[in-house]
Amino acid sequence: MRPVTLSLADIAALCGGRLIGPPDLALRGMAPLDEAGPEQLGFLALRRYVRMVEGSRAGAYLVSAALEEHLPRNAPRVVVDEPYPAVRVLLERFFPSADQPAAVHPTVVLGRGVRLGRGVRIDPYAVIGDEVVVGDGTVVGAHCVVGAGSSIGSRTRLHPHVVAYAGAVIGSDVVLHAGVRIGSDGFGYTTVDGEHRKMPQVGRAIVEDGAEIGANTTVDRGSLGDTVVGRDVKIDNLVQIAHNVRVGAGTLIAALVGIAGSTRIGRRAWLGGRASAINHLDIGDGARVTFGSTVTRDVDPGDTVSGYPARPHREHLRAQALLGRLPKLLERVERLEAALAVGRPRGPASPGD
Amino acid sequence: MRPVTLSLADIAALCGGRLIGPPDLALRGMAPLDEAGPEQLGFLALRRYVRMVEGSRAGAYLVSAALEEHLPRNAPRVVVDEPYPAVRVLLERFFPSADQPAAVHPTVVLGRGVRLGRGVRIDPYAVIGDEVVVGDGTVVGAHCVVGAGSSIGSRTRLHPHVVAYAGAVIGSDVVLHAGVRIGSDGFGYTTVDGEHRKMPQVGRAIVEDGAEIGANTTVDRGSLGDTVVGRDVKIDNLVQIAHNVRVGAGTLIAALVGIAGSTRIGRRAWLGGRASAINHLDIGDGARVTFGSTVTRDVDPGDTVSGYPARPHREHLRAQALLGRLPKLLERVERLEAALAVGRPRGPASPGD
Amino acid sequence: MRPVTLSLADIAALCGGRLIGPPDLALRGMAPLDEAGPEQLGFLALRRYVRMVEGSRAGAYLVSAALEEHLPRNAPRVVVDEPYPAVRVLLERFFPSADQPAAVHPTVVLGRGVRLGRGVRIDPYAVIGDEVVVGDGTVVGAHCVVGAGSSIGSRTRLHPHVVAYAGAVIGSDVVLHAGVRIGSDGFGYTTVDGEHRKMPQVGRAIVEDGAEIGANTTVDRGSLGDTVVGRDVKIDNLVQIAHNVRVGAGTLIAALVGIAGSTRIGRRAWLGGRASAINHLDIGDGARVTFGSTVTRDVDPGDTVSGYPARPHREHLRAQALLGRLPKLLERVERLEAALAVGRPRGPASPGD
Repeated sequence: MRPVTLSLADIAALCGGRLIGPPDLALRGMAPLDEAGPEQLGFLALRRYVRMVEGSRAGAYLVSAALEEHLPRNAPRVVVDEPYPAVRVLLERFFPSADQPAAVHPTVVLGRGVRLGRGVRIDPYAVIGDEVVVGDGTVVGAHCVVGAGSSIGSRTRLHPHVVAYAGAVIGSDVVLHAGVRIGSDGFGYTTVDGEHRKMPQVGRAIVEDGAEIGANTTVDRGSLGDTVVGRDVKIDNLVQIAHNVRVGAGTLIAALVGIAGSTRIGRRAWLGGRASAINHLDIGDGARVTFGSTVTRDVDPGDTVSGYPARPHREHLRAQALLGRLPKLLERVERLEAALAVGRPRGPASPGD
Repeated sequence: MRPVTLSLADIAALCGGRLIGPPDLALRGMAPLDEAGPEQLGFLALRRYVRMVEGSRAGAYLVSAALEEHLPRNAPRVVVDEPYPAVRVLLERFFPSADQPAAVHPTVVLGRGVRLGRGVRIDPYAVIGDEVVVGDGTVVGAHCVVGAGSSIGSRTRLHPHVVAYAGAVIGSDVVLHAGVRIGSDGFGYTTVDGEHRKMPQVGRAIVEDGAEIGANTTVDRGSLGDTVVGRDVKIDNLVQIAHNVRVGAGTLIAALVGIAGSTRIGRRAWLGGRASAINHLDIGDGARVTFGSTVTRDVDPGDTVSGYPARPHREHLRAQALLGRLPKLLERVERLEAALAVGRPRGPASPGD
Repeated sequence: MRPVTLSLADIAALCGGRLIGPPDLALRGMAPLDEAGPEQLGFLALRRYVRMVEGSRAGAYLVSAALEEHLPRNAPRVVVDEPYPAVRVLLERFFPSADQPAAVHPTVVLGRGVRLGRGVRIDPYAVIGDEVVVGDGTVVGAHCVVGAGSSIGSRTRLHPHVVAYAGAVIGSDVVLHAGVRIGSDGFGYTTVDGEHRKMPQVGRAIVEDGAEIGANTTVDRGSLGDTVVGRDVKIDNLVQIAHNVRVGAGTLIAALVGIAGSTRIGRRAWLGGRASAINHLDIGDGARVTFGSTVTRDVDPGDTVSGYPARPHREHLRAQALLGRLPKLLERVERLEAALAVGRPRGPASPGD
């Protein structure tokens, strides 16, 4: 995307930062420290990247107050306390999103009784089932399939290749990325006479207002009752949300996470990448599951758990540290045995072992 | 979905249960205990949910004999020994599936020599390659792509957005969910003069009768020879089945599982969510791999394995329990050392260490 | 696929092998040892499959010199030092790929200013955005969506159902399998007044020449700056490459791997199936991360790491072995305590514990 041009004074004003350098310095977009050129704003927000300051060719810097001392003394800059909100504001101004005209492409297949709000855009080859309702200003990408009886709120964006099964409920201000599946059947069978018989999956899949779901993530419908992705929940790519899971408002779920059936996750919890949880658990409000951990028991609100099976994070760290000390422990036991002449099982001192 | 109405007597008859309460009580569908309203049948099958009985507003209950005592004394109910088969039967009756008319949508692209059985339905924008054969009563969803020379049996259902590469073999009574990929190339390269050269992937991908495969799951074709998903195998979402894997009849594979190339899984095995297995292994009939475990050696028939690397389940549990006892063990060794005045490596008692 | 027929002499010549048996023996394709029939070439490259020699019905064998002794004494065969490069060459000859005619299907939706090279094939229902550039001889599969301003090199193949978001940069000789998503938004939010606000994702996703990416894999665009999949990188199915990740040339990444944001992987590294790495790490050239491991710290060039958290492979193996010895270690400590009459915490000998 080609950025617009902003002056250093504009930049300072937009993010409420302290300006050092020529106010009318013109900057065309921003970039990471090691990629920014002389016409761009580079930014330094993490101590890890201080080492890249030396080689940077950026024309000016956005920097956190904590790291300002690492910049060249006279470098033009804007200094802020919290860099990420500032970055967000600047990116929106440097790279304004281009609106495409609202229109239903002539190749779109519309079912009977479909109701479309004002300013809806539907891209080529989308297939909209009977009785679907779409709110104002929503965009449905190319090739999306929205099953019969589904509803989609306002200002929601379905990127290309989203499939919503029949009866899906998708709120307003939602973003669904390419390949998201909403309302697929849950994994439910019962064994009768040695054969797996499918449990009918008749519940709903609900994605509440403000949620965003990453590419190729799957959200199964409820078996009976609902699967719910709550308000303002953010889910990364390739995540599995099984039937009857409920994810509370504001929870963040990183990539490749798997949540098994009927597990309930509270509000504003955090699940790191590749974490997973078995079924029928409660994970409390504000709980944190670290990267790669496997939850097999309820997690209390506010707790941080780690490992496989996940335990309180400190306990996990201590066990990991002790694992590293096992070789030494073994040597110490051998030394004790030698001192006492207490044999090991096959040693002569304990022949009966 | 809007349910039909059944009487309590109908319900008892359908699932062979014991009726307590008014036989003509009308119920409109069923729901989990905490969601069922006064016109609905709530159900209680797991001890975990007994705590929800108190707040339940259900008009009547389906309950297992083992948990009946937890219901209010006079609550209308149907009591069964095994609740899940009963739930399955009732769901099929409460929520009968609506048949859509068999038809090939005018936008479908049909290749040369395609043979379609009777009562086939093909939804908008599907692309069917040359010489494809489709059996009676099969449904191919919107946007599916079925590669040249593939065959699909009877009464099979491809949900929207399934891709079958050329030459795929899909049986009868199969269900493939949205985003399933059948017959993609396996991950096979050989390094010649320092460059990765692709091994041609010329084998087949075969999905046998009665299998069901979840959303966005991938099944690679054989490199040479076949990849086989056996009869009545059930696979959840986001699973990877690599080239030349063979999954025996009736095996269940939960979400996010990864099976590496040429591994053979027996009949009626069970792989829990996010389990994985490296390549060229044999996992025997009826073996069980628990949630999140990583199999790196052959598993004997009927064995249950856990952990990373996966070991016999009991051994794994014992090792996990001992891990938790390590801090105490360390203290005990320290106490022994103190009693014996045997120093640690840097202690004065063993200066030569 | 139906193979062509080659003589045993052809086969020996094609792979530079030593011929034993009738030179004019006609063989119709090749197959694994246990599937090859009397008209086919079976092959034996791994010791693991020696046990299958006895039941094999293959008409002739391709065998590595190291395993030749396990074949029946007079079996017709071609003997090579390195079997896999030979297999590759033979497969290309037995199963030549059929070229389909270059053409843009009439249902393809082309945006304004699209530039197509010579010999481009675009299959039904693909949607190509404004200003997209496609190089000579490239194939775009059915239903692919290529966002505005993207570029695709020459001789590249997009299988059906690939989505490239706007501005994607895809090189020459690239293969993208069904369901690949290139350039989806990264998982980036900043919390303002207790609400998650999306960080605009304005960087690019770049796939360099010769890369191959497996089915349903996702590659996010850079947040700011680029995400790069380097030259000749091979990625398997269901992998997550987060925003601003850089994967160096020739690196191999197996299925279900997850690489978190801004992590840099060197050249010719190897990540086993289901491995993962947290964000902002450096994984050096030639590093190896074993199957299922979780990397939480930088990995030096050439190192092999294992486990969760990943440690040097040998250290990991030693810790795993010691874990198995813990029960014995416990017994030994108990024996020492008995010999010394040093009690455990609740024993009478140390009442003050």
